[in-house]
Amino acid sequence: MKQIKVGIIGFGTVGAGVADILLKNGDVISSRAGVELVLARIADLDITTDRGVKVPAGVLTTDADALIDEVDVVVELIGGKTVAKDFILKALNKGKMVVTANKALLAEYGKELFAAAEANNADIYYEASVGGGIPVIKALREGLAANHINSIYGILNGTCNYILTRMEQEGADFAPILADAQKLGYAEAEPSLDVDGFDTAHKAAILASLAYGEWFGLGPVYVEGIRNISQQDLAYADELGYRIKLLAIIKQTDGDVQVRVHPTLVPKSALLGNINGVFNGVFMEGDFLGPSLFYGRGAGREATASAVVADLVDVGLNLACGSVHRVPAFRAGKLYKNVLPISEIRSRYYLRLAVRDESGVLASIAEELSRRNISISSLIQHEVAAEDGTVPVIILTHITQEARIVDAISAIEQLPEVVGEVRRLRIEDI
Amino acid sequence: MKQIKVGIIGFGTVGAGVADILLKNGDVISSRAGVELVLARIADLDITTDRGVKVPAGVLTTDADALIDEVDVVVELIGGKTVAKDFILKALNKGKMVVTANKALLAEYGKELFAAAEANNADIYYEASVGGGIPVIKALREGLAANHINSIYGILNGTCNYILTRMEQEGADFAPILADAQKLGYAEAEPSLDVDGFDTAHKAAILASLAYGEWFGLGPVYVEGIRNISQQDLAYADELGYRIKLLAIIKQTDGDVQVRVHPTLVPKSALLGNINGVFNGVFMEGDFLGPSLFYGRGAGREATASAVVADLVDVGLNLACGSVHRVPAFRAGKLYKNVLPISEIRSRYYLRLAVRDESGVLASIAEELSRRNISISSLIQHEVAAEDGTVPVIILTHITQEARIVDAISAIEQLPEVVGEVRRLRIEDI
Repeated sequence: MKQIKVGIIGFGTVGAGVADILLKNGDVISSRAGVELVLARIADLDITTDRGVKVPAGVLTTDADALIDEVDVVVELIGGKTVAKDFILKALNKGKMVVTANKALLAEYGKELFAAAEANNADIYYEASVGGGIPVIKALREGLAANHINSIYGILNGTCNYILTRMEQEGADFAPILADAQKLGYAEAEPSLDVDGFDTAHKAAILASLAYGEWFGLGPVYVEGIRNISQQDLAYADELGYRIKLLAIIKQTDGDVQVRVHPTLVPKSALLGNINGVFNGVFMEGDFLGPSLFYGRGAGREATASAVVADLVDVGLNLACGSVHRVPAFRAGKLYKNVLPISEIRSRYYLRLAVRDESGVLASIAEELSRRNISISSLIQHEVAAEDGTVPVIILTHITQEARIVDAISAIEQLPEVVGEVRRLRIEDI
Repeated sequence: MKQIKVGIIGFGTVGAGVADILLKNGDVISSRAGVELVLARIADLDITTDRGVKVPAGVLTTDADALIDEVDVVVELIGGKTVAKDFILKALNKGKMVVTANKALLAEYGKELFAAAEANNADIYYEASVGGGIPVIKALREGLAANHINSIYGILNGTCNYILTRMEQEGADFAPILADAQKLGYAEAEPSLDVDGFDTAHKAAILASLAYGEWFGLGPVYVEGIRNISQQDLAYADELGYRIKLLAIIKQTDGDVQVRVHPTLVPKSALLGNINGVFNGVFMEGDFLGPSLFYGRGAGREATASAVVADLVDVGLNLACGSVHRVPAFRAGKLYKNVLPISEIRSRYYLRLAVRDESGVLASIAEELSRRNISISSLIQHEVAAEDGTVPVIILTHITQEARIVDAISAIEQLPEVVGEVRRLRIEDI
C-alpha cells in the first residue's frame, strides 16, 4: 500500500486533532482509501506543551523548513496571513502538496497561492476552510459541478450562532452572552473576527468564488456583524415566526451575483432556522439539483481535523495514481455577469421603530414607505410603552430594493413622532 | 480539453434528465471540471416518444450493444436486475466505465459487478443510487474516510415521506393518501417496493456496506414498511413531541452492526424530524466528524440526473488523468464484529393498546413491563372511548432489548382487559 508522508506545521488545536485522527484511525483510513497516511513530522515553535496526543518519538520538530523537505504533503495549520503564507509558498515551490484550513489567507491571497501551485505542479486542498466537518468545498467543486448555482445560504460561524442561539433562548442581550461565551471558550478574547462577520466573509468569498468561477477576494463581500442585535429583535422575530442568524448569502439574480454577510431573519420552519448552537449549515440550490442542505460541526478540533484528513485522503489518492491537478485548487471560468453593490440588492426587510404614542404616526410611516413603492407585509404595535414613553412598532416589508429602504428609513427618521434610529434587518424566506 | 463520450442506456425519466443536463449545462461542467462530457449516444427500445429533450440527430439508437462499443462511459438507467445487469457486465468486460443509479441491482449483485470492474480495469460509480441529489456515497467513500461511523439515520424514500407527511398534516389514514399519491404520480401503481420498505432497504444495504467495509447484500437488513401506520399513531406521536418517519437505521454498538428499516418516532425538534414531503435526509455521525446531516431531493428527474453527472465528472477526471480505481467501487475491509439480529437490538418503544376502561388495567400492563425490566418513560390515557368501548393507552418505554419488548407484548396481549393487538413502533432520539 502506498505510504504518504504527512507533515503538519502548527501544533495547535486543529494540528493536534489531525495528529490524533491519523494515529487513532489509521486502520480505517487505509481500509477505506487504500493509501497509508503516515504522520511523519509536526513542526511548531513550542514542542514541549502537552496537547493530549501521544506523538511517536522523532516526529516533533521546530524546523518547519526541514519538514517541508521531508514530507509529501504539508498541512498548514498556523493560521494568519504572514508566516503561513511563506510556508505554503515554500512547500508549493518545492512541488509539495498542501492542505490548509486558512480561510483568511485563501480569501485574500488565493490567486497568488493557486498560481504557485499551478506553476509547480502541486495541489492545494482546503475543505476545512469553510464549514469545518461539512464537505461543502467538495460538494461545490465536484458534486454540484453540473449545476448553475442559484443560491447559497450559510451559517458559517459557530461563535455567532452560539451567541444568537443563547440570546434567543435566554432572552438576553449581546454583551453578557458574549462575555460568557468568552469565559467558556466559545469566543475569542478579541472577538471581532467572529462577531463582526469577517470570518463569515472570508468563507463567503471562497464559496462565491467556487460557485461563480472567479476568485473574488473580499472586495465584493458586504459585511455586517451581530453586535447590534438586541434581545428585543430576537423576541419580535420569534413572534413573527423567524429566528435571527448571521448568514452568508451568495446568490445570482438574472446572472448578477451578490455576496453578503449580515444578520438575517430566517423562518423558524426552515431547516436553516433550526440550526442552533455552535453548528453550521449550508443551504445550496442548483438549477438541476434543487434545494439541498448540509449540516454539521463548523469548527473545533475533531470536526476540522476530519475535514483536513479528507483532503489528505484526496491528496493520497492523487499521489497513488500519479495525478496532479485532477481537481485543481481553483478553475477560473466566469459564470456570472456583474457583482451587485449592496444598494442594488432586493430583499424583504424588518424595521423596528420607537414612536410616540400619538394618532396618525402609523399613517405617516406607511405614507413614507408607500411613496417609495414599498409595501408592508405585517406590522406589530403592542400597547406596552418603554420607559421613555415611546411604543415599539415592528414592520415587515415585501421585497424591495436596498436603496429604496435606506431612503425610506432616513425619511422616517425625520418624522417628529419617530424617536431615534430605525433598526433595520434583512429577511430571507428560504 | 479532454472529451469524454457518454452513452446512456435507458431513455426514461432519469435518462432524459441526464441528457437534458449534459446539453443545457455543458458550459458549466467544462468550466468547473475541465473535461467535456459529450452526449454521444442514447439507447432505448422506444426512440420515438417525446421526452421533452431535444437530442441531436444520430444520438438515439435502439442498439445498446453498439452503444457500449462507441462510448467511454456507459450510464445504465434501465433499472431492474436482468437486462441492466447484462449491459453493465458487457460494458465492464469491454473495460468501459459505468455509472448507474440501480440500487436494487447493486444491493443484490454488487459483489459480482465490482469483481467484473476490478478484473477489467474499469470503475463503477453509483452516487445516484442513494439519496438522489444528496452526495452521500461520495461523503462516505471520501469525505468521512477517516471516521469510524457510529450511526447513519436516513429518510431515503420520497414516496413514503410524502405519504407520512400528508397523513400527519391532513389527519388522514394510509389508504386514501396512497391512492391520491398514485393519482398525482408520487407513488407507483404497484407501490410495494416503496411503501413496504424494500427500496429503503436496498439503499440501507449500500450505505451499511460502505460504512462497515463488507458488501452485505440484503441479508442482514430488517425491513418493515409504513402500511400499518394509522392516523392515530401520527396524532399520538405528535402529542408526545414526535413525528413518524420511515428510517434506515445503520449503527454500531460495541463493534456490532445493526441495519434496519422501519417506521420510527423521531423528535420534532430533530432536523430529521423536519424533513417533510418528497425530500430525503441522511444523518451520519463519525467518531471525529461528530453529527452531520445532508438534505435534498431524493428522487426525480433533475436531482437524480445531477448526481449521475457528478459521477460522470469523476469518471471524466479519472480518464483525463489516466487513473483507474482511484476510488474503487468498493474496498472491502471489515470494520465491525457481528451483525445483530433484530431481536438483539436495543431501542425505545411506542406501544398503543386498546383497553377496557376498568380499574387495575394500567397496573397489570405496568407489571408485565416491569417484570421484564422495561421502564415506562411516559404514558397517555385520554378519556375518549372508541366505538367498541375501549380506551386507547399509549406507552413510551426507556431503552430495552427488542426480544424483551416482543415478549412483554405477547404477555400484555393475553391480559383480559387488553383488546386486540398491541401496536408497537420504535423510537430514536436522534
